[in-house]
Amino acid sequence: MGKIHGFKYVLCLSSSILLNLYLLDSVLRRDGELTWSKSAAVEAEAVASISCSGHGRAFLDGLFSQGKPVCECNSCYGGPDCSEFSSGCLADADSGNPLFLEPFWIAHAADSAVVVAGWHRMSYIFDDGSSISKELERHIRQLHAVTRNAVTEGRFILFGTGSTQLLIAAVHALSQDDSPSPARVVASIPFYPVYEMQTNFFRSMDFKFQGDASDWKNTSGSSLNFIEFVTSPNNPDGQLKEPVLQGPFVKTIHDHAYYWPHFTAIPAPANGDVMIFTMSKITGHAGSRFGWALIKDEGVYTRMSRYLSLNTMGVSRDTQLRALKLFKVALEGEGKEIFEFGYKTMRNRWEKLSKTFSGSTRFSIQKIAPRYCTYFEKIVGPSPAYAWLKCEREEDKDCYAVLKAAGIISRDGVLFKAEDHYVRLSLIKSQDDFDFLLNRLNALVSEEGAKII
Amino acid sequence: MGKIHGFKYVLCLSSSILLNLYLLDSVLRRDGELTWSKSAAVEAEAVASISCSGHGRAFLDGLFSQGKPVCECNSCYGGPDCSEFSSGCLADADSGNPLFLEPFWIAHAADSAVVVAGWHRMSYIFDDGSSISKELERHIRQLHAVTRNAVTEGRFILFGTGSTQLLIAAVHALSQDDSPSPARVVASIPFYPVYEMQTNFFRSMDFKFQGDASDWKNTSGSSLNFIEFVTSPNNPDGQLKEPVLQGPFVKTIHDHAYYWPHFTAIPAPANGDVMIFTMSKITGHAGSRFGWALIKDEGVYTRMSRYLSLNTMGVSRDTQLRALKLFKVALEGEGKEIFEFGYKTMRNRWEKLSKTFSGSTRFSIQKIAPRYCTYFEKIVGPSPAYAWLKCEREEDKDCYAVLKAAGIISRDGVLFKAEDHYVRLSLIKSQDDFDFLLNRLNALVSEEGAKII
Repeated sequence: MGKIHGFKYVLCLSSSILLNLYLLDSVLRRDGELTWSKSAAVEAEAVASISCSGHGRAFLDGLFSQGKPVCECNSCYGGPDCSEFSSGCLADADSGNPLFLEPFWIAHAADSAVVVAGWHRMSYIFDDGSSISKELERHIRQLHAVTRNAVTEGRFILFGTGSTQLLIAAVHALSQDDSPSPARVVASIPFYPVYEMQTNFFRSMDFKFQGDASDWKNTSGSSLNFIEFVTSPNNPDGQLKEPVLQGPFVKTIHDHAYYWPHFTAIPAPANGDVMIFTMSKITGHAGSRFGWALIKDEGVYTRMSRYLSLNTMGVSRDTQLRALKLFKVALEGEGKEIFEFGYKTMRNRWEKLSKTFSGSTRFSIQKIAPRYCTYFEKIVGPSPAYAWLKCEREEDKDCYAVLKAAGIISRDGVLFKAEDHYVRLSLIKSQDDFDFLLNRLNALVSEEGAKII
Repeated sequence: MGKIHGFKYVLCLSSSILLNLYLLDSVLRRDGELTWSKSAAVEAEAVASISCSGHGRAFLDGLFSQGKPVCECNSCYGGPDCSEFSSGCLADADSGNPLFLEPFWIAHAADSAVVVAGWHRMSYIFDDGSSISKELERHIRQLHAVTRNAVTEGRFILFGTGSTQLLIAAVHALSQDDSPSPARVVASIPFYPVYEMQTNFFRSMDFKFQGDASDWKNTSGSSLNFIEFVTSPNNPDGQLKEPVLQGPFVKTIHDHAYYWPHFTAIPAPANGDVMIFTMSKITGHAGSRFGWALIKDEGVYTRMSRYLSLNTMGVSRDTQLRALKLFKVALEGEGKEIFEFGYKTMRNRWEKLSKTFSGSTRFSIQKIAPRYCTYFEKIVGPSPAYAWLKCEREEDKDCYAVLKAAGIISRDGVLFKAEDHYVRLSLIKSQDDFDFLLNRLNALVSEEGAKII
């Protein structure tokens, strides 16, 4: 009996000691796993864990109140935890802030986090003397390969501090041709206002904004130099576009910011000589200021490189590191996750919006035909980034004011050089923004019904 | 006896069980501490732990070979772990790559790491509608307050993608004055070549580079518009500078990139109307592309803001987050640690260099007088970022070639519009770079002695 007891004791004690050793090993191993990065990780997780009621988020570099980071709320939400909805607030559909993708990244927190060491890439140059990360370049080429949205073979690649910088760098590079008169920069109405704003603002001797491309259709065979911006899909109306001007003195800048499966069917890979993309509209990271250009001609590439170098000495290495991580996540499963999330979200919003306007005679939105998408390998319905809304009635000439009176901030069509019967509504903001916009639009359209009855 | 044994067993078992409970709690608590940030932290630490023999480092976004990140070696070092010194290599003292601060950040790994969440600041704007982090702005003002190197009261602050962008934005803003002729942009020889390169490259209708400020001294009272770059301390020669031109039509851009205790005594806070600083020369993070401007006049501030917005839509939020963390570390102990590290390193290099040239009649370096520094509260000896070396002999007219023949890459004085008797030697690169440069310089100077004997 004593022996049996003794045996049991020994067994228990041995097991317990073995467990001790195992746990001790776990503790030591864990401690050994993380050293210098740990406090930054703890800090980031603490900030991320702050509840902002699903209507906001706290950031590491936000303001602090009583030692706690403050919630930054979505529009129309307020209070310490963003739980207070301010119903008198305007539904803001002005900016193209791509926050519709924020939930995707929150859901992919572990894959998409980056730890930046204090000594990370302090140098002006990468190991090969360039200012671009070869790994990032490789992932960007891969991204185009899997989405089949652009030809990258035989193309140089350039990074910009947002595509904004690349647009003006391209205009600069394409206008350096010893021509006696400045190159005429044009675009098709309606067009993204930044083209004109940049071209005018930098007051170069070599280029001048000259309005609508169509106005120059008959002169483009002449020896006048043209630079045409072609935005495809177009901002504001989401249509796939082709150049209006052709000829030996016409150069084209293809702005493909929205040429991703989120926003459009991809009928074929884009193949322009100068193609510009932005991270903002594929991953949604507008704040990171990262874009890239695919360039066919070496001379143009060299001149654009020089622009980027004398303007900002390349793109922040911190941003390049982060972009690499984000693109790695985007590439998981050949992009299926992010593009399905993006397309479904945008498609769903468009369907809701279409339903809202289906019974309206006062308002209309653009028609986009369903089209075969080589990425999804099926015909896909429209999912544009913006609604290009028309106030159909003669008395609603100032469409912006009509919407404003209904509590909606739109972007005035006049800014896109269209008639003021038009406004742009952004559909890519947060879900809160979209829901509130839809709410206000439904109210506006239902008024119409009420009046008709 | 049996009882005593039994008691011992119970005691051992109880202790063991208690230890188990404690360890289990540790394991669980640890697991509970970090969730989504953990794999990024493990990844970053794994890369950081790769040994590159103290002559290089591996980066998270570097190339991989056999699943392991590749070491990126300092100049003249090679091999898989950077242990192979290539003695035939040239000592490269060309670029102003501020890697002398890299060891500081490696030593402050825990404080300076940042974890960037996948959803961090995706928006174009901060909560207040601006594109700058208020927390970062506050820390920058604090940095000037503790170093007493610039007045920030009553100044607007602007962020740029490196000071490079701010320099040209300032020229643009200061030249918008409805004058019929373009503003004349000038600087004092020897000056930083980028001023001229930018001014020429962007081919604006509103400004034109017009060389040496001194050439215009007698005309600056007239109604000609001037924009003078004043670099203090000067690049290349480290001297504290004052504007050459004065008058109602003269505007001054004070480039204070090097106005930090690392490189110069701080006699008094700088107080110019337009002052430009860069993170590159205070923390050493050239690759992050972050600079800021302190602006007195609201009109100039507004025009520069517009430039930055139409050029790049502000500075990457990833960079702003990182800059905040780095400045927090720099501010520890009122900057004592970083500035003592910086000053000691630079002072030590300068002393060694001075010793090398002390016996030379063939070469001379600039003289900088010791001066009272309000930051260190004592007289400090010179610690400039660059040596401005003169080849004194008539036959050594091409000083760049003389050094090249001795295995040293310098930056030709001609680039700074000086005579070619001059070259600039960068003293702010890595310790390896400096040691090798000194080695080559000692050999060159000792030749001189040998020939005299």
